[in-house]
Amino acid sequence: MSKNISSTQKSYLAGFLDGDGSIYVRLKPNKSYKYGFQIAPYIVFFQSNKERLKFQKICDLIQLGYVRKRKDGILEYIISRQKAIIEFLCWIKPYVIIKKQQVALMEEILKKKETINDSKDFSELMQLIDKFRELNYSKKRKRHILTP
Amino acid sequence: MSKNISSTQKSYLAGFLDGDGSIYVRLKPNKSYKYGFQIAPYIVFFQSNKERLKFQKICDLIQLGYVRKRKDGILEYIISRQKAIIEFLCWIKPYVIIKKQQVALMEEILKKKETINDSKDFSELMQLIDKFRELNYSKKRKRHILTP
Repeated sequence: MSKNISSTQKSYLAGFLDGDGSIYVRLKPNKSYKYGFQIAPYIVFFQSNKERLKFQKICDLIQLGYVRKRKDGILEYIISRQKAIIEFLCWIKPYVIIKKQQVALMEEILKKKETINDSKDFSELMQLIDKFRELNYSKKRKRHILTP
Repeated sequence: MSKNISSTQKSYLAGFLDGDGSIYVRLKPNKSYKYGFQIAPYIVFFQSNKERLKFQKICDLIQLGYVRKRKDGILEYIISRQKAIIEFLCWIKPYVIIKKQQVALMEEILKKKETINDSKDFSELMQLIDKFRELNYSKKRKRHILTP
């Protein structure tokens, strides 16, 4: 993990996230989990493969995730470990403008996730996760319902 | 013009430009100009109308351009005055990563533009402007040829 990241690097990353990045949580149906879903939080950046060397500079600065090449050639830098997401949010939080609500919602979800005692708690968590759809204006408004 | 912009604000804007912005020069055919073209440089940011209040915060920070609403509802913040572009480039230049070449090319073009003596100079300037198409990977590779 990069420890010596400066305030101008943090604010650069906040701007890059506001322009190009995506913050969301995916609920993956998975029967091996207690409530039938795996909670998978993500912060993702995208870039054309043509700019891979410059994009790599940004990834090297962050050092909290991994690069994946999509079938359509677009590169994704994916931060998915919970600790890594918390650290990244901590860096950019003072500077982010456009995605302020997504940052706050992600923090709320990660906190709530640690305090799940019963299916009612889990339902509330799912409702929080569904809020990302509104913030990120996905056209698909699939709602998640917890089936016992 | 905003004078008191901090280094973290400048680096935020560099990140936002790298993620979301566009730098280019348009050659507008115009017979009233000596060589038949008006040279129109642009730095443009885009945002969904849904995020207009947050986008306005970024525009207010920059204060070098104007907002335009496109027919498809997307908002554009357009910096087109030459002095404003030079000032903006000066802010972001130390921090920009992805669009480093576009920044350098824009500076080269604006400098060259001031030293046009004949049609040979103007042809060279047009060639520089055409380089933006490669950098910004437009699919249309229309080349400009100076017709005397």
